[in-house]
Amino acid sequence: WADRQAANGERAIPEGRRHLEEWGNLDNLRIAAGTAGGEVRGPVFADSDVYKWLEAAAWEHGRSPSEQLLADIREVSALVAAAQEEDGYLDSVVAERGSAVEPGPGDPTGSRERYSHLPWSHEHYCAGHLFQAAVAVTRATGERQLLDVAVRLADHLVETFGDGAGQVRDVDGHPVVEMALVELARETGDGRYLELARWFVEARGRGLVAAHGHGPTYFSDRVPVREATTVEGHAVRAVYLAAGAADVAVETGDGELLEALRTQFAHMLATKTYVTGGLGSRWDGEAFGDPHELPSDRAYAETCAAIGGVQWAWRMLLATGDAVYADALERMLFNGFAAGVSLSGEQYFYVNSLHVRSGAHADHERSPAGGRQTWFGCACCPPNVMRTLSSLDGYLATTDARGVQLHQYAPGRVEVDLPGGRVRLDVETRYPWAGTVRVRVEEAPSGTTLALRVPAWAEGASLRRDGHSEDVGPGTYAEARDVREGDLVELELPVRPRWTRPDPRVDDARGCVALERGPLVYAVEECDLPDGVLVDDLVVSEDELPTDAGTDEDLGGAVRVRVRGRRRAPGPEDAVEVLAVPYPTWANRGPGAMRVWLPTT
Amino acid sequence: WADRQAANGERAIPEGRRHLEEWGNLDNLRIAAGTAGGEVRGPVFADSDVYKWLEAAAWEHGRSPSEQLLADIREVSALVAAAQEEDGYLDSVVAERGSAVEPGPGDPTGSRERYSHLPWSHEHYCAGHLFQAAVAVTRATGERQLLDVAVRLADHLVETFGDGAGQVRDVDGHPVVEMALVELARETGDGRYLELARWFVEARGRGLVAAHGHGPTYFSDRVPVREATTVEGHAVRAVYLAAGAADVAVETGDGELLEALRTQFAHMLATKTYVTGGLGSRWDGEAFGDPHELPSDRAYAETCAAIGGVQWAWRMLLATGDAVYADALERMLFNGFAAGVSLSGEQYFYVNSLHVRSGAHADHERSPAGGRQTWFGCACCPPNVMRTLSSLDGYLATTDARGVQLHQYAPGRVEVDLPGGRVRLDVETRYPWAGTVRVRVEEAPSGTTLALRVPAWAEGASLRRDGHSEDVGPGTYAEARDVREGDLVELELPVRPRWTRPDPRVDDARGCVALERGPLVYAVEECDLPDGVLVDDLVVSEDELPTDAGTDEDLGGAVRVRVRGRRRAPGPEDAVEVLAVPYPTWANRGPGAMRVWLPTT
Repeated sequence: WADRQAANGERAIPEGRRHLEEWGNLDNLRIAAGTAGGEVRGPVFADSDVYKWLEAAAWEHGRSPSEQLLADIREVSALVAAAQEEDGYLDSVVAERGSAVEPGPGDPTGSRERYSHLPWSHEHYCAGHLFQAAVAVTRATGERQLLDVAVRLADHLVETFGDGAGQVRDVDGHPVVEMALVELARETGDGRYLELARWFVEARGRGLVAAHGHGPTYFSDRVPVREATTVEGHAVRAVYLAAGAADVAVETGDGELLEALRTQFAHMLATKTYVTGGLGSRWDGEAFGDPHELPSDRAYAETCAAIGGVQWAWRMLLATGDAVYADALERMLFNGFAAGVSLSGEQYFYVNSLHVRSGAHADHERSPAGGRQTWFGCACCPPNVMRTLSSLDGYLATTDARGVQLHQYAPGRVEVDLPGGRVRLDVETRYPWAGTVRVRVEEAPSGTTLALRVPAWAEGASLRRDGHSEDVGPGTYAEARDVREGDLVELELPVRPRWTRPDPRVDDARGCVALERGPLVYAVEECDLPDGVLVDDLVVSEDELPTDAGTDEDLGGAVRVRVRGRRRAPGPEDAVEVLAVPYPTWANRGPGAMRVWLPTT
Repeated sequence: WADRQAANGERAIPEGRRHLEEWGNLDNLRIAAGTAGGEVRGPVFADSDVYKWLEAAAWEHGRSPSEQLLADIREVSALVAAAQEEDGYLDSVVAERGSAVEPGPGDPTGSRERYSHLPWSHEHYCAGHLFQAAVAVTRATGERQLLDVAVRLADHLVETFGDGAGQVRDVDGHPVVEMALVELARETGDGRYLELARWFVEARGRGLVAAHGHGPTYFSDRVPVREATTVEGHAVRAVYLAAGAADVAVETGDGELLEALRTQFAHMLATKTYVTGGLGSRWDGEAFGDPHELPSDRAYAETCAAIGGVQWAWRMLLATGDAVYADALERMLFNGFAAGVSLSGEQYFYVNSLHVRSGAHADHERSPAGGRQTWFGCACCPPNVMRTLSSLDGYLATTDARGVQLHQYAPGRVEVDLPGGRVRLDVETRYPWAGTVRVRVEEAPSGTTLALRVPAWAEGASLRRDGHSEDVGPGTYAEARDVREGDLVELELPVRPRWTRPDPRVDDARGCVALERGPLVYAVEECDLPDGVLVDDLVVSEDELPTDAGTDEDLGGAVRVRVRGRRRAPGPEDAVEVLAVPYPTWANRGPGAMRVWLPTT
């Protein structure tokens, strides 16, 4: 992750600011502020890309302070502040052009009246991303200008929406404001924001979107959140809503709501999640499909959906401490999310397919067959990747009264204050390439327990301390109790290639195996096959276990894995050997054919 | 087919007229004529549904004359005539509302200027369906009022479009006008219509759609027709264009164009056609996918695409005499097309899935999980089914200098005039339920050859004449030469259940078999499984050949087939026996889970 984060900070975030200028997002704010002329450009949610970028820049500044970045944050924040209206309302595109998603043929110039068409207008969605950016900027820089803007907008929302007399009973078609309001409540201590978040969660699934003439499934508005048993509709919307509902459940102590979210998450994981952790199996509506509807070639698995999945999983982990959520988070983060950005940090997949055929036709800027792109007309993913990479450290560890829990493994230092005193840990690991995690305790109050997650795939893991080694079970936390300064705790995870068999109800993967190694899913790329052998001609030998084939510096030091098989008849059934690559590193040598599920017959 | 045609004539066509009234299509014409007030309703191509209905009614009147139907045809034709403008232009929706596809949020009120946005306006598309209706009305009734309207519109198009000075160089986003113009040229003898059809075919693939700011793939406008090697984009558009191009190739003697169409058809058949003959594997864009991208659950396989496939196959058969096209036509007609309409004739599938899971969620009026519908907001399919059923007799036989070729088998009489005299045949068969086809020659000039198609699946067929029987090869035509009055020619086709294995590159069908019997594909419906066994729990025993299980009068006399297998683990692996139904008869006992490709492991 260190290389990924460095690429993000050094190249992607500065580049992102240029894209926001080039695509008109910043001009939109200037137009709304009256400091520039012309017409606003881009989708109705264009402001949100600015806010995501601000959030990314803020976390990056916190991670690796930079005067230039701070100056950029101040400058862009000032543009946002200037675009805000007197009563706190803020949405440059709706104010100037109306609620059309994209201008031009096929899309209307919608009403410019505020909140007149919330299913599509994304007004709360933009507000939510502003709140998240403001919290990040405040925490990373200590400066409160953007937070003031956020608070004014949040106050305006509190006044405007709710069950009270003269208030509007409506919800945004695209959730995110729910978790953002909870974060704002935590930052400001203002309980009204939590209450509005709760209201938005409760108002969902009660016909508000349908009242605008839309089918409710797409908008996660068919069933009240606490009654739902699965996720459905637009994948990003669904998981953002669930993440916000988890925040609300925790902050309000709503056990029933949390239990409903547990059920939904479990159903998603069992029936609607790709082996890569990707979420959303339909291009049509960017949506979850029916249970076990998980096509590889037409997987949508939007990068933003993986990000939302990580956010939801993280909140469930915090709420329950259940390792299943850390496992899911790891799978999503290392595969479905990481594949969304190039190793160079500047090119993005919107759609994360598990299978691209030879000669597949890229008929869309989002088509994986066309390779990663530097930006998109609908640019939700790039700045979402940026903010996730720059805030990644926040997903590694948690604390409770007993001590520190390490959920994800990356080299570096962990410093936290517990009631009994400071804990400082030094973590040394080459994870995910190797399975040894060495934690040296530099400081810890007495009685501190160090808990290390043993991933569900880690059959045969062990924990060593003071020369004593014990086996630890997969899918649990291995505990080292009462650690003291100078202690060395070593977790040994069996990172080696393994075959994974699909659920028999996933039709597309029947008769196939997937190659995994540690937390990583692997893929076979056609450029690694012998000349003339197509990726869809390859039949792998399931009974020959694949083996490590050394690191590849061109792929960021990835460990490649040797897979043996044959070429499918008709034609000579030559033996074929190929070095598979980690799925998150595919398409870094140009676009091309690829597959994750490998046929065995 | 007789029952299907009867249901179409007795119920669907009268019901169709009521739908056109209810959904506003006829009012739109009245509004354009100035005889009614209000605003036009429905999609921009609403007029085309009226024309398809007129065509259906006309062929039906020809098949089974009815005073009521004739009165209806005259009345609706008069509405069309009244809506035509002075210079021949005719499009009620574009004239009144502009080129928006559907009004309301998410879609603009487009420009009302004629032909200003042909990629979406469907102005030529509607014209094409009018031409086809006019030809049908003229042939079936001998009355020329509608043909006069068509000729005035066609003359207006001839003046307006082309390479000449002051002419518009543009093509409609939705082909159909090409084949319609050729038909109009044949009916009227006016070569200008053929020339315009040729011009429209040649103008395609040259950037005209892209000039409006749209990606060209969807519109079959990426590659010139004579250079294309496959079909791509929106499936109905693609096959309508190809059918029109085949007409142009034949009428202009363009061997190069015909050869390109052969290549495209072969590639479609080998890599982009479902076992049901369904065309189009993507909901997103209602489009063809990459080669071998043929998901069962998310098959789109639009009913209209099967109709277009039949039209293209028929034109290729006429142009080449190659049995491969008659085989493809049979597969499309008996399965992908016939499944699109209920046995009662009044309910339609827009989308013809090959797999619906238990508890699948119908999030769209087109979702197969919701069962067939009586009509759709986008009602292209229902009247398209009607016109196909009422003109079905036209696909059965052809003639050439040597005699008569029977391509499809249905009981009835064939009467044609050859240069040497009249041929009258009486065909007796229970096809597709049984494989015996008895052709009694009632009249034939000397030297007449009777050719009977032996379908590609008919391994072991034989032809009997005068007590003498000979084996005939599948995928060919069995010839009886020099037939005379009183001759009895009997074709024996081995109609019995068989397993079909998928192409190994079709991921979704890997490890599965499909059940076929004669020209019919079979499906397993969950309502036929023992209580508690889900369709996705069924594993069939590939080594036990399925057997006939008698006819089912509730399914229109369909022969059902007994399939043996077991319930999949975990849980008790009970033996399971189920009576499969012909795919075209599925979902006639309510919606429910179903699958065509049956797992063997």
